Order: sequence, then structure tokens, then C-alpha cells
Amino acid sequence: MKKKVKVAILIIGNEILSGRTQDLNVSFLSNWLNVNCGLSVQEVRIIPDIEKIIVFNILELSKNFKYVFTTGGIGPTHDDITSKSISRALKTKYTFNKEAYKILENYYGKKNFNTARKKMAKMPKGSKLILNPSSAAPGFKINNVFVLPGVPSILKSMLGDLTNKIVGGEPIKSLTISLKTVESEIANSLTKVQNDNKDVEIGSYPFFHAGKLGVSIVIRSEDQNKIDNCNSQILKFVNEKKIEVVDR
Amino acid sequence: MKKKVKVAILIIGNEILSGRTQDLNVSFLSNWLNVNCGLSVQEVRIIPDIEKIIVFNILELSKNFKYVFTTGGIGPTHDDITSKSISRALKTKYTFNKEAYKILENYYGKKNFNTARKKMAKMPKGSKLILNPSSAAPGFKINNVFVLPGVPSILKSMLGDLTNKIVGGEPIKSLTISLKTVESEIANSLTKVQNDNKDVEIGSYPFFHAGKLGVSIVIRSEDQNKIDNCNSQILKFVNEKKIEVVDR
Repeated sequence: MKKKVKVAILIIGNEILSGRTQDLNVSFLSNWLNVNCGLSVQEVRIIPDIEKIIVFNILELSKNFKYVFTTGGIGPTHDDITSKSISRALKTKYTFNKEAYKILENYYGKKNFNTARKKMAKMPKGSKLILNPSSAAPGFKINNVFVLPGVPSILKSMLGDLTNKIVGGEPIKSLTISLKTVESEIANSLTKVQNDNKDVEIGSYPFFHAGKLGVSIVIRSEDQNKIDNCNSQILKFVNEKKIEVVDR
Repeated sequence: MKKKVKVAILIIGNEILSGRTQDLNVSFLSNWLNVNCGLSVQEVRIIPDIEKIIVFNILELSKNFKYVFTTGGIGPTHDDITSKSISRALKTKYTFNKEAYKILENYYGKKNFNTARKKMAKMPKGSKLILNPSSAAPGFKINNVFVLPGVPSILKSMLGDLTNKIVGGEPIKSLTISLKTVESEIANSLTKVQNDNKDVEIGSYPFFHAGKLGVSIVIRSEDQNKIDNCNSQILKFVNEKKIEVVDR
């Protein structure tokens, strides 16, 4: 069994922090990294577009986790300072990437390749590009930091170019059992199952959905046998308590 | 002019981190705290249900920010360890809060007030309750940490009890100008406006919505006059460039 590979996501952007924009990247990216690369997201931070704060967080997260994935702040405007800040954090030169320059020049045409657009070709020296099939401007990988855009549709279109740059572990599998009950009716029994299976992650989440009230129990592990074993133990007490299993 | 009051949000929960559940609290809470309490969220962290990680983050964020708002992990099941972990972080006793105990006993009835439900009355000694009009189980405030539930509808119903516990600053006001253009066409002009108004936060966000493509410029400040001034400067170059202003 391969070890769990722990990574972090760093969302850079005042618009997410202020609540103006609903983040949609954490949930999608975390799930995608697990399923496709066997990476387990262990921490997410959302921070403002302020250079010293970006520098601090890049240094801390890149030291603490195998990989860091950033989103946001790589566009052409004044508030897009992610690439420059990461250069500073990693003490690498912030300079034109020749390949990125060519891609962007070709995309916009020589005549329309203005200063703002050229900025999107600047990144830390030594970066490897992450290609962007939607809108040309590439992301990049430098050291163990992957730099991605903030717009969810563009981000999604670029993930295909990540898999060959990542060495992951075993994806975590999960199984959900939804019950027509309340948490406090099953808490004791569920605690016993958790205590008998300490290396399996068992979560309990109340839901209110389409007029139905219930609890979803989520079992997570790299090992399908362990999941199946917990599942049996849970269904045993569910049957004994005559609790109805429902769809969710 | 009051100073900006900087706070953090700490989302505690494997279900958010794994991508299983889409977070809906950051955006709502951040906006609510700004409008209703004059608090500016400067950092968000999402972390797993692991005691030592909760302890570490509570200590770091409560030291770095005026207030910390946590969500998640205060229910009756084994994976609800927020209250206990915060007690440990703040070196306060984890014990029954008499008032919370009475509220919950009254809500469930003496006969049905089982061990799991009683657990929701345990919290750090000295906590002040945050009342829960939806499902009884209260949140609490201890030192500068506000502890709230993870279920968005319940969290929302409890915010009314926060305002009298908070000393905030001036809410940050904002104004959005949406344009039928692309970022790289306005980047230079916008940089000039930002350089002329260094204490105003100007953000630029591309959008693709209902078949429309454009850029929203968001101007944010505690001072409406400064916003109006930036707005004029932006509309000036927008007119000169003959860019259409659109609804968004």
C-alpha cells in the first residue's frame, strides 16, 4: 500500500475572501486530485492579493506539503501578482518564459500582443508550463508549486496537463450510507465502529434535502476491504435499530 | 475613520477538504461579517477533524487576528471534536456548560437526553453561548474565538446573536462596474487608477455569464468618496475607449 500523499491548495484572491465570489475550485480540485493523482488535500488557505502574504504562505505550505496548488492572480491586470510573488518567495528571477511568450504572441497576433498580455508570459525562471486549451495563457509548475488560474472553467480545462507532472499515492475511496435518522441516535454505535477501525476515516453529516432529513455516514480509506468491513458493521447496527437506509 | 478590523475564518471538516461537500459558509459569512459587524476577513483556512491541527490553527489565527470564526465539528458524533480541541488549545477545562445543558435537556426532553446529545453541552469553561434558534445546540464564544456549526442554514440562523458580542470597524463598501471588454484591453488604464488611489482596493474579474463575456471591476473602500472618485476615473477611460458598460 502506497503512503498517503498530502498536499495543500492556496486560493489567492480578494474576491473570494470578501465573499463577492463563491469559491468553486476547492471542492472540484480536491476531488479531482484525489481521483486522478492519488493526492490528499490536507489544508486549504484563502488569502488576499498581497505580495508579502502570498510569499509567506507559499514558503510555509511548500515546506509542509508534497505539492501546493495555487489558483488565481495570473491574469493581465495590476491585481494579478501571483507569479511575481511566487518568484520572490522561491528566490527565482521573474522573467519572460520563451515558450509562454510564443504561445501568447501566436494566440493574440503580433499586433495585439500588448504589455498587459505580455505580462502573462512572465513567471519564475525554470518554470514548466501547464498548457491552457481555453484561453492560451499558461499556468506553470516551479519546484513543488503548481500555479493555476482562478476562473473555474479555465482551471478545469488545464488539469489534463497535470497528471504527468505528479507522483501520487493510492486514491482514497469512499462509500456513503444515508440514513433516515438523527446523529444523536447513532452516535454511540458509530463511535464503536470508529474505535474498532482507527485507520479508517468515518464522518457523520446531517442533511436536510428535498424535504428529507437524515444523516450521511461517509467511510473513507485507500483500502476497499476496510471500507467494506466498516460498511458491514454499520449496516449491522442500522438493522438492529430498524433505521431506514435512504438515497441521497 | 475607524481602522479596518481584521479577522479569520477556520472551516473544520474532512467533508469540505475532500471535496465531498461544497463549502457555502465562507462567502456568506465573510460578506455578513463585513456588512453587519464591520469585520474584514483576511484569511480563511480549511482543515481536517484532527485535534492537533485544530489546536495549532486556533492558536495561530487567534494570535494573528482580532477574531476567529470557526465552523463545523460541534455536533454529537465521534468526529465532532472542535469544542474539545479548542479547550485544549486555550488551556481551559472542557466541561458541561450549565446553560447549554438546560437548553438541550429542555429541547430533547429528560428521557431522550442521551450521552451523544449531552456532548453538545460540553465546551471550554468560561464560554458565552451563541444561541441556536433552529436546532437548540448552541455555539459559543471563548476569548476571541467564535464557534459556529457547519450546516449553513443553522449557521445563518445563529448570526443574529453575534452582533452584540463584536466590536467592529467601518464596513467596507464596494461598487462594481461591468464592462463588455477583456482584461488586457483595460489593464494599463486600470493600473493608472490604482496607482493614483493606493489606499483603495481595485479588483478586475473576467466573467462568462449567460453567453456574455466581460470584465467586472470592483472598487472597495471604507470611504464612499474614494469609491466615487475611482468610479469617475474609470468611467472616464471607459468612455474614451468606447467600451460598453453592461449589467452583471
